[in-house]
Amino acid sequence: MSSTRIGFIGMGLMGVPMSTRLLEAGFAVTVWNRNADKCQPLAERGARVAGSIAELCANVDVIMTCVSNTEAVSEILFGEQGIADSAREGQVLIDFSSIAPDATREMASRCKEEHGLDWIDAPVSGGVAGAEQGTLAIMAGGDTELVERVRPLLEPLSQRVTHMGPVGSGQATKICNQMLVSCNVLVMAEVMALAEQSGVDASRIPEALKGGFADSIPLQLTGPKMAARDFDEIKWHVKTLLKDLDMANALAKANGSAIPMAGLGAELMRLHGSKGYLEQDPATLVKLFSDRS
Amino acid sequence: MSSTRIGFIGMGLMGVPMSTRLLEAGFAVTVWNRNADKCQPLAERGARVAGSIAELCANVDVIMTCVSNTEAVSEILFGEQGIADSAREGQVLIDFSSIAPDATREMASRCKEEHGLDWIDAPVSGGVAGAEQGTLAIMAGGDTELVERVRPLLEPLSQRVTHMGPVGSGQATKICNQMLVSCNVLVMAEVMALAEQSGVDASRIPEALKGGFADSIPLQLTGPKMAARDFDEIKWHVKTLLKDLDMANALAKANGSAIPMAGLGAELMRLHGSKGYLEQDPATLVKLFSDRS
Repeated sequence: MSSTRIGFIGMGLMGVPMSTRLLEAGFAVTVWNRNADKCQPLAERGARVAGSIAELCANVDVIMTCVSNTEAVSEILFGEQGIADSAREGQVLIDFSSIAPDATREMASRCKEEHGLDWIDAPVSGGVAGAEQGTLAIMAGGDTELVERVRPLLEPLSQRVTHMGPVGSGQATKICNQMLVSCNVLVMAEVMALAEQSGVDASRIPEALKGGFADSIPLQLTGPKMAARDFDEIKWHVKTLLKDLDMANALAKANGSAIPMAGLGAELMRLHGSKGYLEQDPATLVKLFSDRS
Repeated sequence: MSSTRIGFIGMGLMGVPMSTRLLEAGFAVTVWNRNADKCQPLAERGARVAGSIAELCANVDVIMTCVSNTEAVSEILFGEQGIADSAREGQVLIDFSSIAPDATREMASRCKEEHGLDWIDAPVSGGVAGAEQGTLAIMAGGDTELVERVRPLLEPLSQRVTHMGPVGSGQATKICNQMLVSCNVLVMAEVMALAEQSGVDASRIPEALKGGFADSIPLQLTGPKMAARDFDEIKWHVKTLLKDLDMANALAKANGSAIPMAGLGAELMRLHGSKGYLEQDPATLVKLFSDRS
């Protein structure tokens, strides 16, 4: 499988370290990005830079994509000179983007029926650090045999690739992940403000709860920033959590499922975003519940 | 400090293993319980069993309490033949119970002013297993010098005693802990039901999210039970989470703080409890969002 030729589309914050790790693992990697300048770091490490998506598709066995949202995936697939125009029967597309499960299922059906292209949705969790260190969690949706076949390609990126079900299941699982994270960060903001109002030294809460039932990575990373009102370092964005909670609401609505906690979470996240915090770190959520600066 | 004589009131699920560990650490321990039968296991390990609270108070330097709620603490303190009738100036009370912070502050003031008794609120997290293994987290509220003075007494119970602020701060911190845990378990229930409705193999979610931003001890312990609808083993109770969320609401109301997520959490927990699940494991919360059995 190490002779498999990989194409990687999307040289963003995640795509650069992910394709770098694939290169370093010995795979032949061809990259493409709308703004070609961003391919330069990969070229320096030995990647082939394709001049077009068509050129990329012609030279690879597996096409990987990692872009920012559903619209961007759709454009790369079905836009002018997109993947769909160039894909060959038997090629496999692995989409690492975090996008809507229903759109994923529709695009995957169309790719298979019209172009013979197989689809695996494989959204990741773990951020830029996880991408650089190859410690991402990958939630995969797609045909079982196909997922097993591409597993060796994913090993440089993750020791934890979990197959969640048919196409779209990876995206639905990522939404579940984001529901848990977003609601937890909102409750943390409530907790920090309430603790301060109650005379508690809130800066000690992450330490006091460490290792217990209430603990989480966000409590240890974002909790201290909330307590200290330290918002300078932006590690992730309010707008990402809002986007994911809105996808959760759309999925729940489509399924006839009720998600009251995550539904309220979306509205609180929107309220916070509407006050100018969309591009800020979620640590700023404490300001929704406290006037202290 | 190992010559300190300890009195322990409340031989419940937590009190028995906690007082046992103090005995095994070499402290002289006198125990009392309303139903004296429950003192038997401690007597067999060498504890003195007091015939009354007065007898206990007369023979110890530090009085520890671990009972079920605010009313029970009040009764032990100020009820007929309670601690207040027998306490001596300079004795210290350490209350491990999880009770209301405002009631704690009122009772502590009254104890100090009328009886010279010092108070430390020291609610614990970690459950029966933590009590047995001495790995509880203790969230302490009280005078700084006093908390440092009793720290050696707490070592057999916990390597993590965090001083959170003045009297009542330990209880407020425990409420914060429970807000995070309860809301997280509710969102887990939403996630499990939504995942199933979306064609995801929900039983793989705890494994898929393990070690990531969405992970927590409840996701690993309670998540699999939700996915499998396995409710036979009752490790904790819906009624406890409801009690704690109601205490969170009372504290927030008293402070003028808003806690919308935990407020909705309380109502959802009450709704679930009203359907007959108060004495059941919180894993049953998945039934609030899914008819599957």
